[in-house]
Amino acid sequence: MNLELVTIGTELLLGFTVDTNGAEIARSLAAFGVRVVRRTAVPDRAEDIRDAVGAALERTGAVLTTGGLGPTRDDITKKVVADLFGAPLDFDESVWADVLARYARVQRSPVASNRSQAEVPRGALALRNRWGTAPGIWIEGKPGLAIMLPGVPLEMRMLLEHEVAPRLAARGGSSVIRSLVVRTTGIPESTLAERMGEIERDIAPLTLAYLPGVEGVDLRLSAWELPPVEADARLRAAADLLRQRAGEHVYGEGNTDLATVVLDLARARGLSLGVAESCTGGLVGGRLTEIAGSSDVFAGGIVSYGNELKSGLLGVPEKLIVAHGAVSEQVACAMALGAVGALGVDVAVSVTGIAGPGGGTETKPVGTVWLGIALAGEVEARRVNFAGIRREVRARAAQAALDLMRRKLEA
Amino acid sequence: MNLELVTIGTELLLGFTVDTNGAEIARSLAAFGVRVVRRTAVPDRAEDIRDAVGAALERTGAVLTTGGLGPTRDDITKKVVADLFGAPLDFDESVWADVLARYARVQRSPVASNRSQAEVPRGALALRNRWGTAPGIWIEGKPGLAIMLPGVPLEMRMLLEHEVAPRLAARGGSSVIRSLVVRTTGIPESTLAERMGEIERDIAPLTLAYLPGVEGVDLRLSAWELPPVEADARLRAAADLLRQRAGEHVYGEGNTDLATVVLDLARARGLSLGVAESCTGGLVGGRLTEIAGSSDVFAGGIVSYGNELKSGLLGVPEKLIVAHGAVSEQVACAMALGAVGALGVDVAVSVTGIAGPGGGTETKPVGTVWLGIALAGEVEARRVNFAGIRREVRARAAQAALDLMRRKLEA
Repeated sequence: MNLELVTIGTELLLGFTVDTNGAEIARSLAAFGVRVVRRTAVPDRAEDIRDAVGAALERTGAVLTTGGLGPTRDDITKKVVADLFGAPLDFDESVWADVLARYARVQRSPVASNRSQAEVPRGALALRNRWGTAPGIWIEGKPGLAIMLPGVPLEMRMLLEHEVAPRLAARGGSSVIRSLVVRTTGIPESTLAERMGEIERDIAPLTLAYLPGVEGVDLRLSAWELPPVEADARLRAAADLLRQRAGEHVYGEGNTDLATVVLDLARARGLSLGVAESCTGGLVGGRLTEIAGSSDVFAGGIVSYGNELKSGLLGVPEKLIVAHGAVSEQVACAMALGAVGALGVDVAVSVTGIAGPGGGTETKPVGTVWLGIALAGEVEARRVNFAGIRREVRARAAQAALDLMRRKLEA
Repeated sequence: MNLELVTIGTELLLGFTVDTNGAEIARSLAAFGVRVVRRTAVPDRAEDIRDAVGAALERTGAVLTTGGLGPTRDDITKKVVADLFGAPLDFDESVWADVLARYARVQRSPVASNRSQAEVPRGALALRNRWGTAPGIWIEGKPGLAIMLPGVPLEMRMLLEHEVAPRLAARGGSSVIRSLVVRTTGIPESTLAERMGEIERDIAPLTLAYLPGVEGVDLRLSAWELPPVEADARLRAAADLLRQRAGEHVYGEGNTDLATVVLDLARARGLSLGVAESCTGGLVGGRLTEIAGSSDVFAGGIVSYGNELKSGLLGVPEKLIVAHGAVSEQVACAMALGAVGALGVDVAVSVTGIAGPGGGTETKPVGTVWLGIALAGEVEARRVNFAGIRREVRARAAQAALDLMRRKLEA
């Protein structure tokens, strides 16, 4: 079943409020096989609401609105949608009793305008709202199905869960939308796409989306309107195929953080971790310690932002820095080895680079980063060149440092 | 001037990604008197894009799209919109040179599909994208104005700021929506509101919005449709009034980062900075080094996540940890003093706390954080209790550590 969302409220268009309802409704409805095929946000104006809801009904036959059900004069959704269904508004005593009871509970009195909240389009169902005063409305007729919910996120969520979802599930089919994400890092979207080859053909009827971000490219597989068991089986098989083609660049599935993967690998091998950071300034330590329970594996780190600390705390020979520069294979290796010693850990990763915007040269442009990794007396380093502004270079460098740890620990 | 937004991408409709671009674009355009009157999200399907963009042009005459400009086969925005304008796509050598240069910088090669990114609708302007490979497109013709931007938030933001906003401003009207933000930290929204008193009356016709976040509460003043000179004068006077009432909690205006304030204060006094972090794991160092040019003031830090490193690297006496616990005034002071010594800096801040979800006790519940600050042989500490989940506690603790530095450096 397809459905459109129409979000009603001038404040959402001004941009001071981010609309989180839309995403939440889409995720929630997907579990019942209902697919949101369009989302429209309009101001609290009758003609805009009429136009958007009318077009959605005509196109798709089913619409869910949020907002515009309160007691103020801006709140005109119910009237406008009822008109589209040719349904007059009737005062409903049982809804009014709910409104009165709610006011009694908070020891206040309703005002005259609250009476409008007890009006229900003829032939429609009022969805009881135990979390606010405006009931939701479910109306079906010649134009199709319209479901109206309040815009307040908590009331929307509760009505969706308790009143709307069960009704949609009851009509609905045995088919649902299910997704599975495979996470990759260290490979650009276009190269990844080449590796995938004719994947769309191989995984059909599943679909694949590329979601690039600073931490890497996520690959989302979706199964549309298949029976749940078949959907899960096909997703699993397709994910395995993706993993095979993306190879060593895959670090997890779902919303697994790379830091969690690194910590789990170290824990399994009984190894302690440390970091020596220059251009990332603490971001790698920040990523690892974001994970609750990291303290059993992660000992700590040294942020050697100035060169004095690279020598003073990590024991990088000054002449190495003079000869090769702070951003070099030699210094990255010396930092990683120095961190193992200074922190007393088994494995240490080091990061030294040029985050920009200044500091770049012809041979070492902005975005040049050397990463070092030391384990059991052995050390190696690799150079990476990251695109982007300072913030991105740093975030990508932190992710690459974690990925270097992952690969070392997996080896 | 009115304009509609069309967001393109099946991902956004699935609900796995919250659309933050829409709100950001609306706020940003408002500064130039451009009002977003409708927002539509559609999947990556040619007919949906054509329908939504076409209807927007017909209704409003101006549309801004995000998404669908990448190199994969899902990315069809440019082709579909060009068709609406009757414009064929021409391969543009100068855009291609940009794409090649970008790949060269990161020492990679473009693949065949990247060539489509250098196609520009005839008669349109390619908006140079220095932050990614897909240029934006600005096309005007009989149907009206269409602006196409990439969906990646950073690229969208940069193109909006550097390419779109100046062009819209140049067309612009005489009355605009102008805003000024005063940033506070370390004071809850309700307490701040009490301090403000009858501020709405005092600043009319300007409006005031409270924007709470993990870094503190921003106060946004807005002038609606006033002549620019009057708007600016009123905003300045109102901001001064806010600063007076919020007092020491104000650290800046606009989008000033607290880390920048700290670095500037230290630079002015010729003092070097260091950090000793436990529960924040590197976030304070990360904040300071996010600011370009921080290396002349910020020397580095020690992430002493395990207690061994608190003793080993920072010289915190083990018996202090045993007697008072790692999260205590005594340990916070010893960490800050130890950092001054180990890092050879003038000022050091320390953070030790319980970020959760585990580790809390009756006397030191989750969210308990001790912050220490050492300057010129003197040290002091303060206890703060933060609400929220792990991520929030850590972000708030990092901000509070920076604020403690600010206050010390201002004293």
